[in-house]
Amino acid sequence: MPKINRYEDIDQVEREAKKDYIDRHSAFVQCASEAKAGEAFAVTVKIGDQYAHPDDTDHYISTVTLYNKDSKLAEATLFAGSLGGQGAKGNTEVTFNVVLEKDATFVAHAFCTKHGLWESDSVEVKVA
Amino acid sequence: MPKINRYEDIDQVEREAKKDYIDRHSAFVQCASEAKAGEAFAVTVKIGDQYAHPDDTDHYISTVTLYNKDSKLAEATLFAGSLGGQGAKGNTEVTFNVVLEKDATFVAHAFCTKHGLWESDSVEVKVA
Amino acid sequence: MPKINRYEDIDQVEREAKKDYIDRHSAFVQCASEAKAGEAFAVTVKIGDQYAHPDDTDHYISTVTLYNKDSKLAEATLFAGSLGGQGAKGNTEVTFNVVLEKDATFVAHAFCTKHGLWESDSVEVKVA
Amino acid sequence: MPKINRYEDIDQVEREAKKDYIDRHSAFVQCASEAKAGEAFAVTVKIGDQYAHPDDTDHYISTVTLYNKDSKLAEATLFAGSLGGQGAKGNTEVTFNVVLEKDATFVAHAFCTKHGLWESDSVEVKVA
Repeated sequence: MPKINRYEDIDQVEREAKKDYIDRHSAFVQCASEAKAGEAFAVTVKIGDQYAHPDDTDHYISTVTLYNKDSKLAEATLFAGSLGGQGAKGNTEVTFNVVLEKDATFVAHAFCTKHGLWESDSVEVKVA
Repeated sequence: MPKINRYEDIDQVEREAKKDYIDRHSAFVQCASEAKAGEAFAVTVKIGDQYAHPDDTDHYISTVTLYNKDSKLAEATLFAGSLGGQGAKGNTEVTFNVVLEKDATFVAHAFCTKHGLWESDSVEVKVA
Repeated sequence: MPKINRYEDIDQVEREAKKDYIDRHSAFVQCASEAKAGEAFAVTVKIGDQYAHPDDTDHYISTVTLYNKDSKLAEATLFAGSLGGQGAKGNTEVTFNVVLEKDATFVAHAFCTKHGLWESDSVEVKVA
Repeated sequence: MPKINRYEDIDQVEREAKKDYIDRHSAFVQCASEAKAGEAFAVTVKIGDQYAHPDDTDHYISTVTLYNKDSKLAEATLFAGSLGGQGAKGNTEVTFNVVLEKDATFVAHAFCTKHGLWESDSVEVKVA
């Protein structure tokens, strides 16, 4: 508590409204599966994959946090209006360039001002 | 107060140490000069262009803020270690995808935990 | 740019609407004038003194930042609804307990999602 | 993942080092048990009760988040040095003034840059 919602494979979900609800709130970590030690490595967190989320002032994605295991690497705070504002929908997307020295396990959190905290699946990165 | 430092053209600066100091703290807004209304548009803020900044626990870039005119669109908080950690240097770089409905004027702020607040030159984007 | 608005003595302002506008956006740093080195010392930042600010989803105080000279000590991000929500008005107020080792000069920034950045007068604290 | 650590009653913990570890990272929500609807109500989040936490640049409490049920009300980002700096220890303490319209259930999260995320016990507030 607060509840941490987790991604569910929406192909296993029947109701269209529920597919949309889960997908548009879920955080997806996108990056290469291997990184070179000491070099800039782009990690993108995208909220929603096949569905878009409202950008209304009372309902928007306000926070995107990137963890490497238990360490918080970076957090972005977004303000309503960044995706077109009232009536618009979109996919919040933030790319952080990080430098890794050893294997990483990324997890992202997204926070929706109406529907709370959502945790991504984790993504492993090998560092050589 | 706090002092807001502004970018100076380092080609006009003579002392190497001063070039480095100014460049590695300065925020640069990088994006296309035209955007399509209602479509995702990537805006990158990079700290330092030709020089890199330390990522030491007592000396790192902790905040990157993106303004469109007087509106804060997004703010990223970074933690020491995101660029390799103690002894490493790098260029903090964050990309926000935003959606514009009309012409924008972007300005970014960077905050160094030792050397304070730095404001980028402004960048105009036409929206069609 | 972004413009940094500064507090003006509202007793010198004639129009009531302007008094209200200035006061309700201005940040006030409230603390004792002397602190003991090494002991917890409460610093309150209050937004608005005689007038209250809306807490609407499209118009609220989202950020309160406390600086000691050029150093950022702490930043609070508030979400619409923290002061009663749509239709309500109030004064955002955050107290940070800090520990000082030498004389401090505090300045606070407030950010209104509609009316931008506001800087407080500075407040000196002697540390003994 | 990231792991969310939770408070344990340290009276039930035998090892002194473990008592200290748990207590100094735990978030405690302190407020009255009843609030008046529409009036400012102070909610304090204190990190550590009987033990203090380091404020070293590589090991400090960086974030304090206050939730009311699943809603994020406010988040404070602290910077190393706010509690005296390298070698000092202290208890991060932030007070947010909020306005409630109905019964609330507060939970706080604390983030330690070395030991991750900690969740407080929840605190119920009746609003009349």
